Amino acid sequence: MDSYAEVSYEVTARVATVLLDRPRARNGYTVRMADELADALERADRDDDVRAVVLGTTGTDFSVGADLASGGFDFGTGDGPPPGWQEPAGRVSRRIFTMATPVIAALRGASVGAGITITLSCDYRLASTDSKFGFVFTRRGIAPEGGAAWYLPRLVGMGTAFDWLLSGRVFGPDEALRAGLVHRVVPPDEVLAQAQQLAAELAAHTAPVAVALTRQMLHRMAAAPTPYEVHELDSKLVGDLPANADAVEGVRSFLEKRPPEFPGRVGTDLPSYLPWVNT
Amino acid sequence: MDSYAEVSYEVTARVATVLLDRPRARNGYTVRMADELADALERADRDDDVRAVVLGTTGTDFSVGADLASGGFDFGTGDGPPPGWQEPAGRVSRRIFTMATPVIAALRGASVGAGITITLSCDYRLASTDSKFGFVFTRRGIAPEGGAAWYLPRLVGMGTAFDWLLSGRVFGPDEALRAGLVHRVVPPDEVLAQAQQLAAELAAHTAPVAVALTRQMLHRMAAAPTPYEVHELDSKLVGDLPANADAVEGVRSFLEKRPPEFPGRVGTDLPSYLPWVNT
Amino acid sequence: MDSYAEVSYEVTARVATVLLDRPRARNGYTVRMADELADALERADRDDDVRAVVLGTTGTDFSVGADLASGGFDFGTGDGPPPGWQEPAGRVSRRIFTMATPVIAALRGASVGAGITITLSCDYRLASTDSKFGFVFTRRGIAPEGGAAWYLPRLVGMGTAFDWLLSGRVFGPDEALRAGLVHRVVPPDEVLAQAQQLAAELAAHTAPVAVALTRQMLHRMAAAPTPYEVHELDSKLVGDLPANADAVEGVRSFLEKRPPEFPGRVGTDLPSYLPWVNT
Repeated sequence: MDSYAEVSYEVTARVATVLLDRPRARNGYTVRMADELADALERADRDDDVRAVVLGTTGTDFSVGADLASGGFDFGTGDGPPPGWQEPAGRVSRRIFTMATPVIAALRGASVGAGITITLSCDYRLASTDSKFGFVFTRRGIAPEGGAAWYLPRLVGMGTAFDWLLSGRVFGPDEALRAGLVHRVVPPDEVLAQAQQLAAELAAHTAPVAVALTRQMLHRMAAAPTPYEVHELDSKLVGDLPANADAVEGVRSFLEKRPPEFPGRVGTDLPSYLPWVNT
Repeated sequence: MDSYAEVSYEVTARVATVLLDRPRARNGYTVRMADELADALERADRDDDVRAVVLGTTGTDFSVGADLASGGFDFGTGDGPPPGWQEPAGRVSRRIFTMATPVIAALRGASVGAGITITLSCDYRLASTDSKFGFVFTRRGIAPEGGAAWYLPRLVGMGTAFDWLLSGRVFGPDEALRAGLVHRVVPPDEVLAQAQQLAAELAAHTAPVAVALTRQMLHRMAAAPTPYEVHELDSKLVGDLPANADAVEGVRSFLEKRPPEFPGRVGTDLPSYLPWVNT
Repeated sequence: MDSYAEVSYEVTARVATVLLDRPRARNGYTVRMADELADALERADRDDDVRAVVLGTTGTDFSVGADLASGGFDFGTGDGPPPGWQEPAGRVSRRIFTMATPVIAALRGASVGAGITITLSCDYRLASTDSKFGFVFTRRGIAPEGGAAWYLPRLVGMGTAFDWLLSGRVFGPDEALRAGLVHRVVPPDEVLAQAQQLAAELAAHTAPVAVALTRQMLHRMAAAPTPYEVHELDSKLVGDLPANADAVEGVRSFLEKRPPEFPGRVGTDLPSYLPWVNT
């Protein structure tokens, strides 16, 4: 895709900002928006100069969830979806799951339905004091999407996941913060800037290859039946450290009390032996 | 079973209320009580007119745990349990795990040993200000039962699960609430009514098929090695939405700002392709 | 090993105390320290008279993490680690994972890098008011070690695990307590004594075989795809209770309102049918 109709994309100082851009529809979630978001996220992830992504909105709501302007769900699949079809919320949350680059969601106003599930695989979710969250699926007669049944209990525990997903009730930012759904609650007009600031800090202080390894290890190995697979991978990675240019720079800059300049890049320097397939 | 000796069963306005009914023994847990509870829960689950179950007590304690009136553990198994024998607490917590209908535990007074483990697969646990909880197994020389080693860390995290299960100490409702074991703490005389009110709200606002799918997805897929199995199931379910009568009614009632009347029933309308066996 | 250079070992009243003992280097973590720690922990675990282990420091810091005195990472592996080589932090956290005996970490001052990851499989972590924690890996150009990607999300949830492991920032004891990383925060001079007191309480009130089963069930089965494996094991263990001397004593001492004297010992009385390999 060369340009987007429902999403904006901008890169400034190693941070990509991807914004949902249908403010008049309160970012009602469409198939087109899903595909443009997935494309923009992949573009950011392939660009080694982008060190973190902020996912936000051009308006006062992140997203009210599936666009119901046509009076129901319309996925443009005619007589039914073809085999392997991916539902729209999962196209984005799964894309974020597979990325090497961290993604910080900047949420304000409504984050309901797909408007919250697409962010569950993000590294950070910042909320605003006017945030409203709702996993409203059972109230619309449908099951949760976006992989929520997998991600949500890992973020907030089984008890809260049952409550939110079964009841479908709408709740505010304080409850979201206490439960661990979001990392911070700030004024609405500051949430985008704070997300960009956090992205800039990650870019300044951390090694991109180490960040990519960390987020993929958390996503892909935290559910392993035992920790032994993780210990095995840790040992390979640690065994490589004496010859690892990022680790050499990390220690040297620390001992010299100066900011690090990590040479490693995700596009070329990820180890070849990672035990997962990057899809 | 046609009638129960140690349990009561009643259905009112789409909510089944199942009560432990040995108040003089503080609901000391017996093999008979386990079997009657499992039977009552299955009866409720097979009744499409029952939309939620409340699990409580006729007395002032939910249950003090295994009945020790005979001076020890007596499972009525003679020379040892037969192959495939299920221990009594697990007969109930596993039954609840497999259900399509949500179960809300109304806990007051003592909830100790089996008196708490049988509720760990419930959708909600409400506590009272006089609740006392204890996973006292190590203090009685035994390992945890009821599947607690699987359920508890998912509810309260590994650190708290280690503390409670290893130490066997008794703790109060505030600690249970902070840790995420219970959803709410209310006066003892109100806990049953509040559980029934919550059950009535679920019945009024949510689609039973969507509720059944949600609770089974959470129980059965949240431990999947990756989210991909969940994304795959989500996509099948979402792909069916345009032809799903519950989803059509869910959206229509939302747009028309009226309460929904979901036509789907668990007995007939669950999808055929769910990736788990309902046992 | 007959004696240790970087670790101290002492057994008093059924509690082994293992202390990191390079206070001038703030317990900079070395390969030798890792191997001595693993040896001391195994010694305690093989001693049926030891009922709990306290892991602490002789100085004012638990550990600042990998010793960087040589200017970089030096694992003494010459041209690269041999196949099956285990990285130093994992040698300890994995050893603790496999133990039958519970381990209580007494943390004060710095617990950074390996100085926190080696404790993630402990049963308890007590912190002090001067504790400083940091999973600083990405800031040194490296991925997390010690199995942290597996243990940490289970302790504190995915959201906090992402924050701490990605950002590498240093944080204090209050944040650690709220998130569930530590169980208690006490004055620095009291943390070792409180850990020993907690160890003594476990030794006084709980059955060692039940404790060993509980901690291994939590570690090894909590990540099982379904609870059914746990229900199956529970049923075998509960079916054995009428003939289990610890359970008989546990119930009898409870009914007689006296302290229990559990006869079972881990070295001889663990069931033969546990579904995991003790490595």
